Amino acid sequence: METLPDHSATAAGHAPPAAPNPGGLTLRRVAIDTWRENVAYLHRDCAVVRAEGFQALSKVEVRANGKRILATLNVVDDPAIVGCQQLGVSEDAFAQLEVPDGHPASVSQAEPPESIPALFRKINGERLGRDDFQAIIRDIAGHRYSKIELTAFVVASNRSELDREEVYFLTEAMVASGRRLDWHEPLVVDKHCIGGIPGNRTSMLVVPIVAAYGLVFPKTSSRAITSPAGTADTMEVLANVELPFEQLTGIVREHRGCLAWGGTADLSPADDVLIAVERPLSIDSPGQMVASILSKKIAAGATHLVLDIPIGPTAKVRSMPEAQRLRRLFEYVAQRMRLSLDVVITDGRQPVGRGVGPVLEARDVMQVLENHPDAPNDLRQKSLRLAGRLIECSPDVRGGDGFAIARDILDSGRALAQMRAIIDAQGSRGFDHQHPALGALTLEVRAPADGVVTGIDNLQIARIARLAGAPKVRSAGVDLLRKLGDTVRTGDLLYRVHASYPSDLEFARQASERSSAYQIGSAEQVPHVFVEF
Amino acid sequence: METLPDHSATAAGHAPPAAPNPGGLTLRRVAIDTWRENVAYLHRDCAVVRAEGFQALSKVEVRANGKRILATLNVVDDPAIVGCQQLGVSEDAFAQLEVPDGHPASVSQAEPPESIPALFRKINGERLGRDDFQAIIRDIAGHRYSKIELTAFVVASNRSELDREEVYFLTEAMVASGRRLDWHEPLVVDKHCIGGIPGNRTSMLVVPIVAAYGLVFPKTSSRAITSPAGTADTMEVLANVELPFEQLTGIVREHRGCLAWGGTADLSPADDVLIAVERPLSIDSPGQMVASILSKKIAAGATHLVLDIPIGPTAKVRSMPEAQRLRRLFEYVAQRMRLSLDVVITDGRQPVGRGVGPVLEARDVMQVLENHPDAPNDLRQKSLRLAGRLIECSPDVRGGDGFAIARDILDSGRALAQMRAIIDAQGSRGFDHQHPALGALTLEVRAPADGVVTGIDNLQIARIARLAGAPKVRSAGVDLLRKLGDTVRTGDLLYRVHASYPSDLEFARQASERSSAYQIGSAEQVPHVFVEF
Repeated sequence: METLPDHSATAAGHAPPAAPNPGGLTLRRVAIDTWRENVAYLHRDCAVVRAEGFQALSKVEVRANGKRILATLNVVDDPAIVGCQQLGVSEDAFAQLEVPDGHPASVSQAEPPESIPALFRKINGERLGRDDFQAIIRDIAGHRYSKIELTAFVVASNRSELDREEVYFLTEAMVASGRRLDWHEPLVVDKHCIGGIPGNRTSMLVVPIVAAYGLVFPKTSSRAITSPAGTADTMEVLANVELPFEQLTGIVREHRGCLAWGGTADLSPADDVLIAVERPLSIDSPGQMVASILSKKIAAGATHLVLDIPIGPTAKVRSMPEAQRLRRLFEYVAQRMRLSLDVVITDGRQPVGRGVGPVLEARDVMQVLENHPDAPNDLRQKSLRLAGRLIECSPDVRGGDGFAIARDILDSGRALAQMRAIIDAQGSRGFDHQHPALGALTLEVRAPADGVVTGIDNLQIARIARLAGAPKVRSAGVDLLRKLGDTVRTGDLLYRVHASYPSDLEFARQASERSSAYQIGSAEQVPHVFVEF
Repeated sequence: METLPDHSATAAGHAPPAAPNPGGLTLRRVAIDTWRENVAYLHRDCAVVRAEGFQALSKVEVRANGKRILATLNVVDDPAIVGCQQLGVSEDAFAQLEVPDGHPASVSQAEPPESIPALFRKINGERLGRDDFQAIIRDIAGHRYSKIELTAFVVASNRSELDREEVYFLTEAMVASGRRLDWHEPLVVDKHCIGGIPGNRTSMLVVPIVAAYGLVFPKTSSRAITSPAGTADTMEVLANVELPFEQLTGIVREHRGCLAWGGTADLSPADDVLIAVERPLSIDSPGQMVASILSKKIAAGATHLVLDIPIGPTAKVRSMPEAQRLRRLFEYVAQRMRLSLDVVITDGRQPVGRGVGPVLEARDVMQVLENHPDAPNDLRQKSLRLAGRLIECSPDVRGGDGFAIARDILDSGRALAQMRAIIDAQGSRGFDHQHPALGALTLEVRAPADGVVTGIDNLQIARIARLAGAPKVRSAGVDLLRKLGDTVRTGDLLYRVHASYPSDLEFARQASERSSAYQIGSAEQVPHVFVEF
């Protein structure tokens, strides 16, 4: 028998709780840029600080004009920064409130996010259900998680902590956290690569080929996170990629395709929050990779996706059993989400194309589109194969015919014309790809012996290109003059590093002295091709 | 065959890297309290920001007068806060640099901590070695980990992720991260409880009893983290607990014991950094608990430790198999660290003593020391048993005789005299325990039916006491008038809540209405005692 006790308060105990905001405060923009972290500044002698027992680093809720934002509290002792009657907020937080300086505002302790009990259960190793993932992702997308809570979620969901049903729930929750596009078309195609291969700019060829064929291909890409160039960084050499959402959809309707940065479209916004934690920890577990990629594509309205999984000794995926496990997880979740998915496992033994870095990669792409004699053939072949697979999504095309159709479109110049139309629609940057402006400071790395190129380390090439300044310095990067299997003599040029600043070049030089990324050996040491599709 | 290529830089490439601090900066104290997080403020137009490509939230290293600290960067647009030639730092960071306002200073990108590769291996589920833990803990104690990295370490070491060898390495590294005391005595005793039981202030009785017997007992305690009172909070009602290190050691030499806050002694400082992350995530895994407790005790110079593991339905440990597993892990690590350890498993079914909250608990302790007729007997008995176990560490005492010796010391008033001497040495607060000043606002919770008290929820009592203001409001808390097995009539007083602020009392009232923490039933429903030692 359990019975509830009754309660008798003494006289003093009947007083109602104190009002959450004694004394009106006025909002003050504090000209401090705290990037994505909202910070609120209150004077130590402010009545609210004393009444609520606030402490520096408390999480508070700031309210003004019906808007609410969460912020971290800093306590100020200088009335020149914020006075006792003021509620200071950092620049980004001020912008979110959308009220003028001096507007009435209030502040209170933030309620802990609703999904914290579910987070604690995940930390303790429990399997979570659909509602749990919905609640967690809603709080993450709403910026209600602290860095500590975000990190705990990411690490507790790392490795094989999520089973495939949980990955499906996570994907579904991430799609639901933002905007979901509907193109009102029966067939909306997309492609994606899991990453890790420098120079792999196939999207910029596949989009114009497939859009020229007539399929809707609304390609949104990310900027580089840990690589020397993302598709958005490279496309930005040619055209504007930060498009207002309405312009983006207009371009897709008119030209069947676009090559834009995805950040303006509010697609799977929880993903962007999670990446801010995953990146510094180098976390890229299968479950999180699948949820991140598929949620973005589904939110963008794709019905058919071709997914590129490169495999090689320095690629993200290093063995065929690993690639097959990852393929099955992608396929399981895609099928549950009603996305038609074609996984292709590709050669990831070395960088694709010649250039690594935004301008160098844009040059390679334009050479392929122009059928230039110097165009890198591996980039051309891989792009044609991926484009062919997408064209075969069309009910009119027989399996196996896609490659030839794609090649026709490229060889005839229709892909180039389509690309030019997309560039003009997005806003051309007037890039002169015949004479690309490359970083004027250069470093040439040469073969130390006669032999055959038996290895090119993707990770080391990426590292050298980043140290040289890419992607921030658009014209910086690495230009590869030799590829796997090439015969070289002592002193032959292997690659050239381009930089714009002496210190960048020096950092790249030090890295390439530690390891050049190239191995020279004999012909039989070239690792065989893992795959051919 | 792998051969290293040679490197030929172009003329421009030979330039040395840019100096890390172009243009001298002067230090400026920015009167913003960011608590334990160091923040550096630089103006957006500052040459260093532009040259180094700093971004808000970058981790930077600030150097002045040979000192170096790490800080998070905020970018400022208001010269009133920080000018272009100034390097602003938050209050706590400024204090760490120990130079006056206007002193020359420089700033550069912070190098990533050395132990990051080991951290990444732990995130990926690898077992780490002794050197890995040394490197990680050195970086953590040196405040070189970001919140993200700290959280990742804590979550990746959670649950059963650490094997017992790793727990030993972690403990050893935590001891090495700070000061290690050597009392030059063959026998230095200590006691510790894993926590979770409100009112369990046995240390304040065990220390005077055992020190009066003559053993060295340098007890340092923490403040409450999630509980309504820690030993340091309660002792602070009676005496000063924040003692300079030299005073602390002097008191121990003279009086054989002390009851001080451990924060000033730099014992296992990495532990304090980790707790800042473990607390908001409610993480208290066996491995981290063992490393945290044992490292503090070993660093404090203890040779013999009695460890109290309470067990009960609302205690931290809820079953005997769980208690035994935890005991074995403590014993394994203690033996590797050459600490003599006695684990006692105690009754954790309900709070110990009557008061919960600093003043209420100090009252209980003093009543026991004075052999007052109202003194709570459970607190007295438990303290005598723990003190007896410690006295038996002495080679002169036969196993089984300790309890009687402890009781003699308490009954004769020698323990009270010893406590008074320690209080005077630390600096008495002049607490009047006969008439303790309790929170004037009260709430009385009464029995809703006739019956027997069959359950008291430790967690709910702690929650109500915290909402009432404890430990921050020293005089707030819960005074328990009935304990397990007591017979009650409808309307009998179960407990009284004390608070100093109406809003605190109201929050406590709401919580006790949701659940009073008491169950009333029939005599046979009282859970039996798990242990008796």
